[in-house]
Amino acid sequence: MSIRVAIVGYGNLGRGVEMALKHNPDMELVGIYSRRDPAGVATLGGKAFHMDSLLDHKDSIDVAILCGGSKEDLPTQTPALAKHFNTVDSFDTHAKILEYEASITPSALEGKKVALISMGWDPGMFSLHRLYSEAVLPNGENYTFWGKGLSQGHSDAIRRVEGVAAGVQYTIPSSEAMQAVRSGSNPDLSTKDKHKRECFVVLKSGADATKVEQAIKTMPDYFEPYDTTVHFITKEELDLNHSKMPHGGFVIRSGATSSEHKDVLEYSIALDSNAEFTASVLVAYARAAYRLHKMGECGVKTAFDIAPALLSIKSREEIIKEML
Amino acid sequence: MSIRVAIVGYGNLGRGVEMALKHNPDMELVGIYSRRDPAGVATLGGKAFHMDSLLDHKDSIDVAILCGGSKEDLPTQTPALAKHFNTVDSFDTHAKILEYEASITPSALEGKKVALISMGWDPGMFSLHRLYSEAVLPNGENYTFWGKGLSQGHSDAIRRVEGVAAGVQYTIPSSEAMQAVRSGSNPDLSTKDKHKRECFVVLKSGADATKVEQAIKTMPDYFEPYDTTVHFITKEELDLNHSKMPHGGFVIRSGATSSEHKDVLEYSIALDSNAEFTASVLVAYARAAYRLHKMGECGVKTAFDIAPALLSIKSREEIIKEML
Repeated sequence: MSIRVAIVGYGNLGRGVEMALKHNPDMELVGIYSRRDPAGVATLGGKAFHMDSLLDHKDSIDVAILCGGSKEDLPTQTPALAKHFNTVDSFDTHAKILEYEASITPSALEGKKVALISMGWDPGMFSLHRLYSEAVLPNGENYTFWGKGLSQGHSDAIRRVEGVAAGVQYTIPSSEAMQAVRSGSNPDLSTKDKHKRECFVVLKSGADATKVEQAIKTMPDYFEPYDTTVHFITKEELDLNHSKMPHGGFVIRSGATSSEHKDVLEYSIALDSNAEFTASVLVAYARAAYRLHKMGECGVKTAFDIAPALLSIKSREEIIKEML
Repeated sequence: MSIRVAIVGYGNLGRGVEMALKHNPDMELVGIYSRRDPAGVATLGGKAFHMDSLLDHKDSIDVAILCGGSKEDLPTQTPALAKHFNTVDSFDTHAKILEYEASITPSALEGKKVALISMGWDPGMFSLHRLYSEAVLPNGENYTFWGKGLSQGHSDAIRRVEGVAAGVQYTIPSSEAMQAVRSGSNPDLSTKDKHKRECFVVLKSGADATKVEQAIKTMPDYFEPYDTTVHFITKEELDLNHSKMPHGGFVIRSGATSSEHKDVLEYSIALDSNAEFTASVLVAYARAAYRLHKMGECGVKTAFDIAPALLSIKSREEIIKEML
């Protein structure tokens, strides 16, 4: 029998979940629930319903994947839904996760449901690597580097500069800082030390390149403390080479097992689509939520609480044979 | 109260465990058990006992870390000990893990103990990355690359060649093959395609370099199908630059979340000491074995069955705050 999944919220993340379900043959999409009029929701084939009918469909849903935002949607939605459904979400406000968890726990326990929170790549896969590597190499330091990634906020900031017609900004991990970490010297690095900013800018006709470059590089907070490079390109080059939205980063642990022996453990991801990858992680954890609930568990859990085997479509024998 | 640990077997791995325990303040070394005369076992401070007294000390040991070899020791030792102790081992004959598990299960269940098998970096950390990355990116391929690593077997083979005074061999991942994998082209690669062999050789006085190089490069199985480079160096250079025994490798998953969007997830390790790092992993899993047993669990488990939080010395609240 398939795991029956509902998608709650249908923006980029919800659409990514609909795509990801196609790669997970043990799952079945029951419905897509949105606050919009279902007639106007253009899905990839899934049946759209109004959010109001979600509770009526309760008995045909094994796991609800919550695809709302961490700021506006999840803080009210998850506590309300966790009583009725096993849920998985990508709540990503790192500093508020404990508070968020506490707001859901009573509801999940009352309904005897499993609520998996803060899944994705960070929090999520990056967090797992931080935990594993600290546990297996306790004498060391963790370093997280961002990029190469397109930053929407910084790209918007560039476009507000006088004389700029269009532009994008990439956050790039500093190769010098990465090299220092990999060497095992355990350097003390600020966010600014670890990252560079690279801008590709199309000028308005008649604009002064020197002035624009200066305005970008001295913009406080956004660019000012960073090593910033500005490239001027044509509109055609921008469209041809900068239409993707890459995301990624590195989590590096550098440590030592003895005074003579150093070790470096490194995890990195490079994603063409942030939303689609986050969605793909949510779907794997939906499988775990379903299994944990079947095993009689309930309450709120994070990636740290989930045994890896629960994520795989394969049997325990298969994963031992093929991957251990 | 500390977790009371016994080290069973005292070669490089056992010594590594003794070192690793010093970085884990919630653990306490109860004793080192060896088949040798305890008087002749030079430990780093731990008390040495003869293996025969292990069972007598049963009540003061929470977890026995088994540091014997996969070929001679563990297949008989673990089934015999798992009835009396929670155990952790680094059994690494990939093809025989299921069989090994089956030989231990009755004993662990009878004694209501937890036996954690096949921990280390491969099987172990590499296996975890294979499983996680397949689960969160099901539409893709896993690739494992070895190196940079010193191969004892290949170094021995070089030293048997006529005219060679000394030498070492490193297995190096092919940068071309890695690039092809990272590009997302999902190439079909054999072990030979993925690795190169680099040799550093000291000639005996009067030996013919061309002949030696030819003899190495054409040695069947060891070097013949591989892209092999031979460097001739002096004894001084060998001692200065090639006295470490690096180990490491890469597990790369390349996949796609949709027809337009590719993703690469990469895990790599670079170790100065294979034995010390494996030991450090064993110690983290000893903590998990202790906790699982306290929770009333028993039976044989692999890294796939263990929730990551069980490995950390920190509380659930701390790991969420600091690492999620």
